[in-house]
Amino acid sequence: MRVCSLSSRRNTYQQSGENLVVISLTMSEQTDTQHAWLNPEDIQAVRNQVPLVYVDAVPVRTDHDGTVTHVGMLLRQAADGNISRMVVSGRVMLNERIRDALMRHLEKDLGPMAFPRVPPEPSPFTVVEYFQDPSVSGFYDPRHHAVSLAFVVPVTGECHPTQQALDLAWFTPEQAVSKDVIREMTSGHDRLIRLALASVGQLP
Amino acid sequence: MRVCSLSSRRNTYQQSGENLVVISLTMSEQTDTQHAWLNPEDIQAVRNQVPLVYVDAVPVRTDHDGTVTHVGMLLRQAADGNISRMVVSGRVMLNERIRDALMRHLEKDLGPMAFPRVPPEPSPFTVVEYFQDPSVSGFYDPRHHAVSLAFVVPVTGECHPTQQALDLAWFTPEQAVSKDVIREMTSGHDRLIRLALASVGQLP
Amino acid sequence: MRVCSLSSRRNTYQQSGENLVVISLTMSEQTDTQHAWLNPEDIQAVRNQVPLVYVDAVPVRTDHDGTVTHVGMLLRQAADGNISRMVVSGRVMLNERIRDALMRHLEKDLGPMAFPRVPPEPSPFTVVEYFQDPSVSGFYDPRHHAVSLAFVVPVTGECHPTQQALDLAWFTPEQAVSKDVIREMTSGHDRLIRLALASVGQLP
Amino acid sequence: MRVCSLSSRRNTYQQSGENLVVISLTMSEQTDTQHAWLNPEDIQAVRNQVPLVYVDAVPVRTDHDGTVTHVGMLLRQAADGNISRMVVSGRVMLNERIRDALMRHLEKDLGPMAFPRVPPEPSPFTVVEYFQDPSVSGFYDPRHHAVSLAFVVPVTGECHPTQQALDLAWFTPEQAVSKDVIREMTSGHDRLIRLALASVGQLP
Repeated sequence: MRVCSLSSRRNTYQQSGENLVVISLTMSEQTDTQHAWLNPEDIQAVRNQVPLVYVDAVPVRTDHDGTVTHVGMLLRQAADGNISRMVVSGRVMLNERIRDALMRHLEKDLGPMAFPRVPPEPSPFTVVEYFQDPSVSGFYDPRHHAVSLAFVVPVTGECHPTQQALDLAWFTPEQAVSKDVIREMTSGHDRLIRLALASVGQLP
Repeated sequence: MRVCSLSSRRNTYQQSGENLVVISLTMSEQTDTQHAWLNPEDIQAVRNQVPLVYVDAVPVRTDHDGTVTHVGMLLRQAADGNISRMVVSGRVMLNERIRDALMRHLEKDLGPMAFPRVPPEPSPFTVVEYFQDPSVSGFYDPRHHAVSLAFVVPVTGECHPTQQALDLAWFTPEQAVSKDVIREMTSGHDRLIRLALASVGQLP
Repeated sequence: MRVCSLSSRRNTYQQSGENLVVISLTMSEQTDTQHAWLNPEDIQAVRNQVPLVYVDAVPVRTDHDGTVTHVGMLLRQAADGNISRMVVSGRVMLNERIRDALMRHLEKDLGPMAFPRVPPEPSPFTVVEYFQDPSVSGFYDPRHHAVSLAFVVPVTGECHPTQQALDLAWFTPEQAVSKDVIREMTSGHDRLIRLALASVGQLP
Repeated sequence: MRVCSLSSRRNTYQQSGENLVVISLTMSEQTDTQHAWLNPEDIQAVRNQVPLVYVDAVPVRTDHDGTVTHVGMLLRQAADGNISRMVVSGRVMLNERIRDALMRHLEKDLGPMAFPRVPPEPSPFTVVEYFQDPSVSGFYDPRHHAVSLAFVVPVTGECHPTQQALDLAWFTPEQAVSKDVIREMTSGHDRLIRLALASVGQLP
């Protein structure tokens, strides 16, 4: 289990932050098209008409009896353009089951060897409502209104964050709610982490 | 509390079924436009591109200590065109909070004096995935793919089903899972009722 | 809705703290016997043999659409002897249903006009394990090992804390997780409040 | 995965039912003492004074994306003396964590190679109240009042039911709610299976 120190990682992306943003933006657009299996004009039109269905997956490590010991967070460009600590997140496509969307986004973000264990329950631990106006719910997405079903997902294998993410790090519950880590999160992602930890009884 | 006999009610709509279907279809289209605040062409275009966000609300009566004693079901035209026993259901609109969508659909279907108590939790008791292909999840909607957050909602006031519904009746848990009532439900609504009763510990 | 300032109330009990502790201890023993419908020797014997079943109820105020706006906390002597902000809590008796135990403790602590709405679901938002060793779970009870089912309970009427409690005050979610209020809580009660707020999506 | 036919199994124990009951009763008493780490007089005394804390675990098989495909049920002597299809069930001991009790009973009933994955959430999918009077809640235990936290537990390894159980069989959701299997269950265990299937969205 890889538990990196925060300071070294933050230096990395602060030194090269500008380039990364540019690269990441480009990739983000490509991926958006690919996820959607819609061209950019279509997805833009839809965004102005209905809320989109999303899934958020909070990757965790558990010990042998199921207690959550670490939370995994990607370091990547958030929807608001900032580099942020984030969970796995993505859109549910037309005719796609939620469970399949979860598996697809987990594999895309954590690599094919993460071996996620999507919980059997269809009910999420919380529903996150992302609005273009951050004051509505505290969860913010400048692109659109999205309703996201959020799940805690134990992963048992090796995680290799894919190109879009700069890094993946594992934090203890105490670290995950510390000021240093919260400072690295935007758009309400820090609150989502606290809600996830609470749902598994590990909110400090 | 009104618990009507099923047989009398069924006779009513069987005698006048054809007209009702016509009337109901007309109203359904009007309402669809109104819900969507989108014109029919736009909603049709969106349906071919992304899953829609829905809410399902199962109205219940509880006794003084919160035990569910009755489940309320509307008699109305389902999405598949059949007259079916159904729960309160409807779309979440752009920039609308889920909680507001629940209140809006409850008032629309049960009238302004129902006094629903939407639960404080954002997490639904289940997530219903409606597909155009009934074999995918067992929940069927011929119009579109919808992801519906389902809530059990105690109502404490007088319910007056609105024009779209032919009737509202209250069933005990035993009645609600009986063959006679299940026969009146299509598109997986009977299963949704069983899931709702299970979530409140009252599935017989 | 009464939202008192904390400072004035704390002064009150700090000035007369010693007497209050004595009085409260006496009442606590009487009550214990009464709850248990067991004499003190019997309850002591049982405590050394099995974990006890408890219920914790977090009283909340909600607005018209069910959003939690305030959390109610009693000011009373905790099991550890300290005066602490606490939720409604008590033992489930032999042959008593959990729902009845909840109603009994809510009425005992909040008075007969509180009109609590115990949720229809049998499943608690969390299970709190109180141990005599505070390091096991973070939830501490020096008297015994207790397994407590914790529920968020909207109350709609007037609350009149009974003799055992010095006070009842309502806090916004922001106040409830503030340092000033946390400082007034012992034995893990502050964490229980955060878990409750998370379950209703209102953890700041 | 072993999915035995029901008829052959039922024949087996019906042919030798009398002996099995005797053997099982003897073992049950031994085990009771061992679980409790209390002698029989002490556990009897406690049973007359307070409800006991139990855990129920419903073993399931899931496919790669977490969908429940089979439910495991032991064939063993229930508390009411009947041979019944049952889930894993047992008492939480003094100073034992719920999670540890779950792991202990799963290993005891399914063997050391079952590799159960106890879910990270502390909250059970339902709370089962077993009473000596079957009319109170529908869940019956002639020995005592027990409050049981019920969890769905995916198991990934080989299950070898231990001596107390006559058999372990895996049923599809459809089989698990069929009349033939329900007929093999007493004391409300069939209802518990339906509640478990509902919680994972697989109640037919």
